[in-house]
Amino acid sequence: MYFTKMHGLGNDFIIFENIKAKDYDWQEISRKVCDRHTGIGADGIILVEDSDEADIRMQIINSDGSIAEMCGNGIRCFSKYVYEKSIVNKENFNVETLAGIMKCENKVESGLVRSVRINMGSPICKSDSIPFTGPANNLDYTLKVKDRTFKAATIVQGVPHTVIYVDEINDDFIVEFGRIIENHMYFPKKTNVNFVKILAKDLLEIKTWERGAGLTLACGTGTCASVVCSYRNGLVTDKVKAKLEKGELLIEYIGDDVFMEGPAEFICEGKLLF
Amino acid sequence: MYFTKMHGLGNDFIIFENIKAKDYDWQEISRKVCDRHTGIGADGIILVEDSDEADIRMQIINSDGSIAEMCGNGIRCFSKYVYEKSIVNKENFNVETLAGIMKCENKVESGLVRSVRINMGSPICKSDSIPFTGPANNLDYTLKVKDRTFKAATIVQGVPHTVIYVDEINDDFIVEFGRIIENHMYFPKKTNVNFVKILAKDLLEIKTWERGAGLTLACGTGTCASVVCSYRNGLVTDKVKAKLEKGELLIEYIGDDVFMEGPAEFICEGKLLF
Repeated sequence: MYFTKMHGLGNDFIIFENIKAKDYDWQEISRKVCDRHTGIGADGIILVEDSDEADIRMQIINSDGSIAEMCGNGIRCFSKYVYEKSIVNKENFNVETLAGIMKCENKVESGLVRSVRINMGSPICKSDSIPFTGPANNLDYTLKVKDRTFKAATIVQGVPHTVIYVDEINDDFIVEFGRIIENHMYFPKKTNVNFVKILAKDLLEIKTWERGAGLTLACGTGTCASVVCSYRNGLVTDKVKAKLEKGELLIEYIGDDVFMEGPAEFICEGKLLF
Repeated sequence: MYFTKMHGLGNDFIIFENIKAKDYDWQEISRKVCDRHTGIGADGIILVEDSDEADIRMQIINSDGSIAEMCGNGIRCFSKYVYEKSIVNKENFNVETLAGIMKCENKVESGLVRSVRINMGSPICKSDSIPFTGPANNLDYTLKVKDRTFKAATIVQGVPHTVIYVDEINDDFIVEFGRIIENHMYFPKKTNVNFVKILAKDLLEIKTWERGAGLTLACGTGTCASVVCSYRNGLVTDKVKAKLEKGELLIEYIGDDVFMEGPAEFICEGKLLF
């Protein structure tokens, strides 16, 4: 079986063209090939499939075999893959996902996709839809954790996201407080926690503690949510560059839609030997 | 650049045939391709090279770019690779390594290497050569750590190894006590710590805390050292099966040599795209 490994800011995926092999147990295959010691190793697999509703269909299965509805870093890899492999022969196209039809815009130079821009949809900013049981203004409130008090905001961008404003991005600090805030009583369904340092009106640094997964290298929806909250609080403009551990994302908040632009990289291609 | 990924009991390596490309910066390549998110991902790379002194030469470079003298799990992968790729056309052969010439015996069925047996050399059991500053009998002493007292033994099998006898193999326990014992005052150069549960005269279970690296899936020299110490203490015979997290090793203590036999597996092969 042939595969390609790619990553989007360190979030890594193994791509399979599934078109002729729909009867495989892809959840079991994902668990095996994503094992980082006895398999190739990745956060998940991405299947390229034909679509009746869009130009192409993407299915993402996590390394534990669970189905992912969508993934911002994954769809950038997918978008570069299907364009450079000539599976879809246009720069802008629609992708069917379990989270609906996503619009991809490939930024192409000399036939290569330099970055991919995705419409990540509209954030949900109403506190009763998050759900959120904290102070009345979920976009700007004070969160007390242990001996610390943080300026915070909570919205849904795909999943619940809380933004915590900090002076420094520090891993030990994020592990200590991320775990507590994820499970804080304000969030009945828990929350992702985005630690954000504002560097300028158009620049921020971010690191995300993911609900159920812990510290991540890059969280696309968390970066979008952080820009939306920061814009609503007057801290940044509507077009912001975000510095993540392995690179940058450009986030634009236009009307009520959030656009995310960032890189995707090929790592290797080959065939499985087990 | 073409590669093959293999593993020996979860200790994983990327193999390159280095014969025509000796001027590459393999330490930098190892750091890049072993990164588990932006590279293929592995514990190290193995280079297959011509040798003037033996049938073939193996060089191992760790994922951090440092040079490894030898690795028991790595050389099993190497041995299967060079045999099945017809680079060495005999089942038993000599391999030049930075730790000297190693003898490999491939156990072949239907042209495939089912397991590899390696002479891992002689243990050093004299306490002043380890170095060890604890009780006079380094092969059977009592080690007190926190509120616990362990039956312990310390020898050198390639590197310093301490064996701690326990009733159950438990990861949290190993992390808690491994870290402390590694740095205990008895070991001026620190020590690997092997937590061993004796299951029968010819069967033990083992998990190793590696000096500087922490919990490992499989430590070949630690398994050898554990059998030597257990044999010297009359706990096992001279031929012992050891259960590790991802499979088994067969250890034989013949004369003063320790032989280790175990599996190696192919994962994938392909080419780098970066």
